[in-house]
Amino acid sequence: MNAITLSIGNELVLGQTVDTNSAWLGRELAAVGCDVVAHITVGDDQPAIVSAITDAAQRCDLLLISGGLGPTKDDLTREALARVLNQPLEINEIWIGQMEKMFQRLGRVMVESNRVQALIPRGARLLTNLAGTAAGIDADFILPGSSRSCRIFAMPGVPVEMRAMFQREVRPQLIAAGGGRVIISRTLHTFGIGESALGEMVADLMNRSRNPLVGTTVSEGGVSLRITSRESSRSEAEEKLERTIAECRRILGDLVYGSDEQTLPMVIAELLTRDVLRRVSTAESCTGGLLAKMLTDVPGSSRYFQRGWITYSNDAKMELLDVDAATIFSHGAVSEEVTRAMAGAARRKSGADFGLAISGIAGPDGGTAAKPVGTVCIALAHPSGDAARTFRLPGDREMVRDRSAKMALTLLRYHLIATPMPF
Amino acid sequence: MNAITLSIGNELVLGQTVDTNSAWLGRELAAVGCDVVAHITVGDDQPAIVSAITDAAQRCDLLLISGGLGPTKDDLTREALARVLNQPLEINEIWIGQMEKMFQRLGRVMVESNRVQALIPRGARLLTNLAGTAAGIDADFILPGSSRSCRIFAMPGVPVEMRAMFQREVRPQLIAAGGGRVIISRTLHTFGIGESALGEMVADLMNRSRNPLVGTTVSEGGVSLRITSRESSRSEAEEKLERTIAECRRILGDLVYGSDEQTLPMVIAELLTRDVLRRVSTAESCTGGLLAKMLTDVPGSSRYFQRGWITYSNDAKMELLDVDAATIFSHGAVSEEVTRAMAGAARRKSGADFGLAISGIAGPDGGTAAKPVGTVCIALAHPSGDAARTFRLPGDREMVRDRSAKMALTLLRYHLIATPMPF
Repeated sequence: MNAITLSIGNELVLGQTVDTNSAWLGRELAAVGCDVVAHITVGDDQPAIVSAITDAAQRCDLLLISGGLGPTKDDLTREALARVLNQPLEINEIWIGQMEKMFQRLGRVMVESNRVQALIPRGARLLTNLAGTAAGIDADFILPGSSRSCRIFAMPGVPVEMRAMFQREVRPQLIAAGGGRVIISRTLHTFGIGESALGEMVADLMNRSRNPLVGTTVSEGGVSLRITSRESSRSEAEEKLERTIAECRRILGDLVYGSDEQTLPMVIAELLTRDVLRRVSTAESCTGGLLAKMLTDVPGSSRYFQRGWITYSNDAKMELLDVDAATIFSHGAVSEEVTRAMAGAARRKSGADFGLAISGIAGPDGGTAAKPVGTVCIALAHPSGDAARTFRLPGDREMVRDRSAKMALTLLRYHLIATPMPF
Repeated sequence: MNAITLSIGNELVLGQTVDTNSAWLGRELAAVGCDVVAHITVGDDQPAIVSAITDAAQRCDLLLISGGLGPTKDDLTREALARVLNQPLEINEIWIGQMEKMFQRLGRVMVESNRVQALIPRGARLLTNLAGTAAGIDADFILPGSSRSCRIFAMPGVPVEMRAMFQREVRPQLIAAGGGRVIISRTLHTFGIGESALGEMVADLMNRSRNPLVGTTVSEGGVSLRITSRESSRSEAEEKLERTIAECRRILGDLVYGSDEQTLPMVIAELLTRDVLRRVSTAESCTGGLLAKMLTDVPGSSRYFQRGWITYSNDAKMELLDVDAATIFSHGAVSEEVTRAMAGAARRKSGADFGLAISGIAGPDGGTAAKPVGTVCIALAHPSGDAARTFRLPGDREMVRDRSAKMALTLLRYHLIATPMPF
């Protein structure tokens, strides 16, 4: 089943909002065996939406629209869809009732403009929205002059509403429709190694004619391997996928920290709690709380993380973490010596098993010839000593901070798996 | 000048990576007066890329491609573009020399696969990459059977490389090409008010036939107003834009915290440093460092932020911030009383002007009937007292944490502008 996603919104074409819906839908569609051939985005312009729907419907069996179902005048998906289907819009009274209940529960009054959110083209089906007031639409579009049809699902653009609606209302229907090839895909994540170096390691597996297909992708400072298997049966697709994944893991070893939805913080959580529970405390300068934020991204993180210090100034380092003024004076705040002292204090003062500390120059200012922007020191204090490393990380302030926190997690990860960090 | 962006990558259609390039390019293109009519995304499949380029070129004067220029076998943009242009690929020796220098500087060896990154279709121009090894391509595609041409720029998919290349190599050429209508767009940001309530306030300005056009968009927990002006001259577009912005600001008043690229942390930074310098310290429970991370997102934040505490456990709240065990016992860790105590201690122990504290239930577990997931208490300690508020924030763990931190910044913002918070 060929699928296309269509995102609608001026804020998307003008770039004021990043479209995360297409990626999410792409993942979900692939998981149920749909072949996603394209993502398309157009603005809040009725002729453009009508033509995008009409064109896309020629090229796919399934069109997933998100956006343009809000209560305001720039929400035009309902009208455009009614035009394409050549049907009038009708108020769905059941949905009006649902909306009134929703507003009551929130103690708010339903405004008149919300009523348009219950409009559905005649003959189409309503999709329930559990997280908001815009009803979704499920319609069959019979292509003019053809017996072929394209199934169209129109959903709200607000990610939390779209996701809930897809999961509850759309996915079960796609699975029921079934049919066609099975495409399954998995991802192995690395952090700290470059894309071309990784590509060379698995070059033999990256041949374009190979199935499963192996590709590299750079995201959020790390490099991931995507392995995609396309077969006529799920069992065959899964078996071949597993074999290629095993091959990739054999070649890359501990460079792979996780797979699929696994993040570095999730892997750390797993390592800290697997056999005996161990705890970590943080001491951060340039990352300003980001390392602790990552550690607490994981539900249940209170088991292994209980406190952290953000010591952005030298005074804070001295007063909260007992770093010697002399150490700062002779080595600089961005030094392995100071970072070791921070990590040691975080461990000691919290009674945690590990203290993890970062001090660096995130930029854009503050760099020197000896310590340019991107210079970051990371230290880990552990029960039998400590370790410290210095890196020069590329990118802007946001990237340097993000990579610093991930490098600190990586240092902890290699300690937890009792393996020397290879970079 | 009509423009289309084309993003290439299996990781994008399969949704393993969110495409941020299209949004960024959309913003940049609008800013130089291009009318972005669509974003398109296709996978690493040569026929699909060839057909996407050919189709898009029919519908626009300018096609900006990102992705598929990497060193690995799944990077097919060069080959597809050569096919569309009907020209052979040739090694660009100047770029080979540049790459060798780059690898030397990084103390690494250039691997053979990097050589393909210097391939350019005959007759096309090379675009320098300051941040990586993939050369970009600048080509004119004369549409078959027509005298019309489409200018094609192919850039790497890694955002930092693409952005640097666009700014240095592409934008100047687009400005020089000039011509056509001027489209300028600005955004006003609010946090804390719902989309339909905001839409009702500015309903008269949201008429579809109006120019400048006003639209609402929900992003990252806030609601923004986009104002887009399209005129034949820049001065006229700017004048009309300013007039509509003034009208929106008059209606919304202090609900608007900032505009365009301004973020809440940037606005706080400005308010804290504008007349006299004032400092803030943080004490966080459920946000686990995110509030401090946001405050330090801004370059130069060390002036107004110097330290923060992450007290995730009750023990940490008592030991680091002197919160009374009795207060926690009688009101619970998620209470205005405990949050006030945290904020007061953060202020007192740091000597800062303000202490800002958060304690809440981010979920997915830990909710009760009286305090369901999403219950968050926020407190501000200031030189003449303190303030505390309780919210029930919607969404998942990530959203609750994000909105909690932004709500805390909003509480501080209203204090700094000496206005009662209206929600």
